[in-house]
Amino acid sequence: MKKLLDDPAEAVTDALQGLAAAHPDLLTVHHEPTYVQRAGGTPPGHVGVVSGGGSGHEPLHTGFVGSGMLDAAVPGAVFTSPTADQVAAALKAADGGAGVLAIVKNYTGDVLNFETAVELAQLDGVEVASVLVNDDVAVEDSMYTAGRRGVAGTLFVEKVAGAAAARGDSLEAVAGLARRAVGRVRTMGVALSACTVPHVGRPSFDLPDDEVEIGIGIHGEPGRHRIPAGGARDIATRLVDAVLDDLAPAGGEQVLLFVNGMGGTPLSELYGTYARAREVVEARGVRVVRSLVGSYVTSLEMQGASVTVAVLDDELTALWDAPVRTPALTW
Amino acid sequence: MKKLLDDPAEAVTDALQGLAAAHPDLLTVHHEPTYVQRAGGTPPGHVGVVSGGGSGHEPLHTGFVGSGMLDAAVPGAVFTSPTADQVAAALKAADGGAGVLAIVKNYTGDVLNFETAVELAQLDGVEVASVLVNDDVAVEDSMYTAGRRGVAGTLFVEKVAGAAAARGDSLEAVAGLARRAVGRVRTMGVALSACTVPHVGRPSFDLPDDEVEIGIGIHGEPGRHRIPAGGARDIATRLVDAVLDDLAPAGGEQVLLFVNGMGGTPLSELYGTYARAREVVEARGVRVVRSLVGSYVTSLEMQGASVTVAVLDDELTALWDAPVRTPALTW
Repeated sequence: MKKLLDDPAEAVTDALQGLAAAHPDLLTVHHEPTYVQRAGGTPPGHVGVVSGGGSGHEPLHTGFVGSGMLDAAVPGAVFTSPTADQVAAALKAADGGAGVLAIVKNYTGDVLNFETAVELAQLDGVEVASVLVNDDVAVEDSMYTAGRRGVAGTLFVEKVAGAAAARGDSLEAVAGLARRAVGRVRTMGVALSACTVPHVGRPSFDLPDDEVEIGIGIHGEPGRHRIPAGGARDIATRLVDAVLDDLAPAGGEQVLLFVNGMGGTPLSELYGTYARAREVVEARGVRVVRSLVGSYVTSLEMQGASVTVAVLDDELTALWDAPVRTPALTW
Repeated sequence: MKKLLDDPAEAVTDALQGLAAAHPDLLTVHHEPTYVQRAGGTPPGHVGVVSGGGSGHEPLHTGFVGSGMLDAAVPGAVFTSPTADQVAAALKAADGGAGVLAIVKNYTGDVLNFETAVELAQLDGVEVASVLVNDDVAVEDSMYTAGRRGVAGTLFVEKVAGAAAARGDSLEAVAGLARRAVGRVRTMGVALSACTVPHVGRPSFDLPDDEVEIGIGIHGEPGRHRIPAGGARDIATRLVDAVLDDLAPAGGEQVLLFVNGMGGTPLSELYGTYARAREVVEARGVRVVRSLVGSYVTSLEMQGASVTVAVLDDELTALWDAPVRTPALTW
């Protein structure tokens, strides 16, 4: 294992130190317990939007803290849920008097710890609503999940919720829009290589040199099947078909097409894959009106990508387009 | 070799197709010859800023086309200079009536082809100035270079020049500021792994599992020496020391610290490395007042990073801070 790290046990802390030092205008990092908060805190009277989960998926979630997206993010150890204490501290800190929305990816550990944290925060008088993201169409149950996994579509949910909170929507309205976003976003991914968790020191699974894994999870959990390594067109077709079969658009819909890198895949390959994916989407009568291409929801240095499609309406489009200023997403 | 590609010979074209489809509001891609142009072209009366070079370093340069940075970018084949015809077409297209600045990374092929292109454009009546970027302190001459290589510091030069052009500076002024930026920016990198050029199909060099290469070039050209794979603190110290020894700041200077990923290194490791690098910079009495962390000047899927320091003054700081809107850099 070669990584740009010192003590593997301190890898998350070291990265947070760098994040805080590089972006003092956008966020601050709190310790004991650890969470990342928007600089200046949630604007008074606005809903706070909080997410979190295991580290190793950066920039998700810590890189989305700032204005127009997350008011706080809670990083656990690599591929490990943050503790309930961490999440509860972030929920309380993000309360600007109008309540807090917790956005939770559907993994057993996250779901349990967020549930406990919500109860703790409510005991302290914070109004909290939760929304569960489960956009991965690959498998129904998985290594760490009952039900579908939450993966790259989480970015879409966080952007929509953050924009709704920024315009002053109520907690009920922000939560409703986040749930609408969850209902309209689907993802499937592919791995070309495994990643290595720093404190483990060896690849998280074996993948032969001539095979790729279709439907991979963002922790290297098994997907649907392995196929001979082929071209971007074949892979993009398989991913888009699975996503659209599940979304079942009636035709004529306007969508966001998001091609996400798993961390170790060059941007040029992501753009090439986007071109192929877009051809497949449009051949099915669906119009791509918004796009995002880059490594936003990653698995350390895993090579691979995922394809996310979100069906837009006028309101979701406006929320997607609304200004955002965070370390990883700005417009 | 496993990559998200179809025909390796079409990899650059496929990626450009995706870039164009994803960002129609920012840029257009021209073919025969191939170059990327800012949507709507250079604003009349403004200096055009053009750069280019071999592909495989994305988002450099094509991802920096938009407002406030490059008016056109010219991608060659992977790790291969664009042709003089390509560059000449981009220079002519980027002329908004106030002349064009060509920003050239110091590689023999790029230098020759840009020189020819400048002559061709001048024959067609376009006023052109050129600036050569050679920020890599690692080696004096290299596999593809007489003199120092141009690497991640190119981003700084392009940002400064683009901002100067955007505020309406003359060609002489834009070129002068770009040269000032070149004079104040230095970089050194490290590789943890090699990359594989698609049409070659095997890694561009061999690096044992327990060694890293200090002073690597962005095409995998040899650096200064190989050392046992160690920690981020050791590597960051070596890179920063080499950069600052060369820049020789008197102390008290304000700098931009830019930690750049080579393509296959996770963002979390880049932030951890940034934290270490910043400690070393500040221990030498230099103040970090601006930061950039991410994979912007890459070598396909190479694992590794580079550290860039740019000594700022009030004008360079203002130009760095000026609004920019491109696929890869926006604020």
